[in-house]
Amino acid sequence: MGCFITFEGVEGCGKTTQIKLLAQHLTEQGHTVIVTREPGGCPIADQARAILLDANNRAMTPTTELLLYAAARAQHVQEIVKPALAAGKIVLCDRFTDATIAYQGYGRGLDPATIAYLNDLATGGLKPRLTVLLDCPVEVGLKRAFDRINGAAGAREERFELESVLFHRKVRDGYLKLAEDEPERFIIIDGSQGVRETEAAITAAVPARLAEG
Amino acid sequence: MGCFITFEGVEGCGKTTQIKLLAQHLTEQGHTVIVTREPGGCPIADQARAILLDANNRAMTPTTELLLYAAARAQHVQEIVKPALAAGKIVLCDRFTDATIAYQGYGRGLDPATIAYLNDLATGGLKPRLTVLLDCPVEVGLKRAFDRINGAAGAREERFELESVLFHRKVRDGYLKLAEDEPERFIIIDGSQGVRETEAAITAAVPARLAEG
Repeated sequence: MGCFITFEGVEGCGKTTQIKLLAQHLTEQGHTVIVTREPGGCPIADQARAILLDANNRAMTPTTELLLYAAARAQHVQEIVKPALAAGKIVLCDRFTDATIAYQGYGRGLDPATIAYLNDLATGGLKPRLTVLLDCPVEVGLKRAFDRINGAAGAREERFELESVLFHRKVRDGYLKLAEDEPERFIIIDGSQGVRETEAAITAAVPARLAEG
Repeated sequence: MGCFITFEGVEGCGKTTQIKLLAQHLTEQGHTVIVTREPGGCPIADQARAILLDANNRAMTPTTELLLYAAARAQHVQEIVKPALAAGKIVLCDRFTDATIAYQGYGRGLDPATIAYLNDLATGGLKPRLTVLLDCPVEVGLKRAFDRINGAAGAREERFELESVLFHRKVRDGYLKLAEDEPERFIIIDGSQGVRETEAAITAAVPARLAEG
């Protein structure tokens, strides 16, 4: 049986960069690692992702959004995550169920019991062994996210970058509460540091925590 | 407040043709009618429909399918059906929650309680005033559906036409059980008749049932 590690945090916290660096590090140590992300990670979930992130879909209701995330997750877990874990791989996943609780629950105010029901339905009860929360002030993260958008030729603003700073603050606070509630699963890393400092913190903390058993 | 009427039945039962004919009939009687369908009926739900009906998406898990239907329904109910009913219109809808119970429940064997939960979440409790079940033997319906596919230049077989005859029989039996359980909501019409005979049966039965109050 493999090991399932998720990365969480607000927009621009550095998840995507740090997942790649941790994957390199673990691969060099001899592990077989796959890197995946939500929403998406396989063709059917990527089709749902395209609906979710399209900034033209402003009319999307919060319940529709929640159900689309769950649909993408159900496919991704069954088609990618579970088979990789069964094959003994380390699965590094960019966002998972905590993101739904933070964004749709704390951010949009949707009913926590509904979110819990859908997370459980979509995952069949699969939980991460470890979750790395890259915490940073939302202003720092959003500045990075907008720099990235402005730097990419022809890139469009995506739906979540268009949300208010207040929304992103609620998301950050939600993540911190989740980490407080499950200290044995979460590792909080300061994501406002530079890439190398953050990498050093993660590559020190993750193997140590996994060694705890 | 308007009136919500849904049409249900197996592939090729004649729903789409009969909805248009009933809409004409009710419009001639002075009603304001909108015709819509599930999955779909608005741009975001149509994007989910495209994922659901694409025959390339063979890897789709039953839970993913169920959640995508719910996502499409949540958007369609909120954006199209409820506003039309609030404006006093008659809404004729090609498939609704009964289709999920018949196809995903009776057809695929998914848990009825999960389906009921998702139907309720997606509709916010909205139920049809009347449901016209166009019942016909699955062989009759599938022959019509395949004739239609073969007649359309370049049309591809869609996901549900590729299911077995046994699957479609379970769906038909499911619909008949639903109608048996709620006789005050369902009208069963013989869909194996010709278009004109079926039309006559519907235009006689629907206004009579609505007049009952």
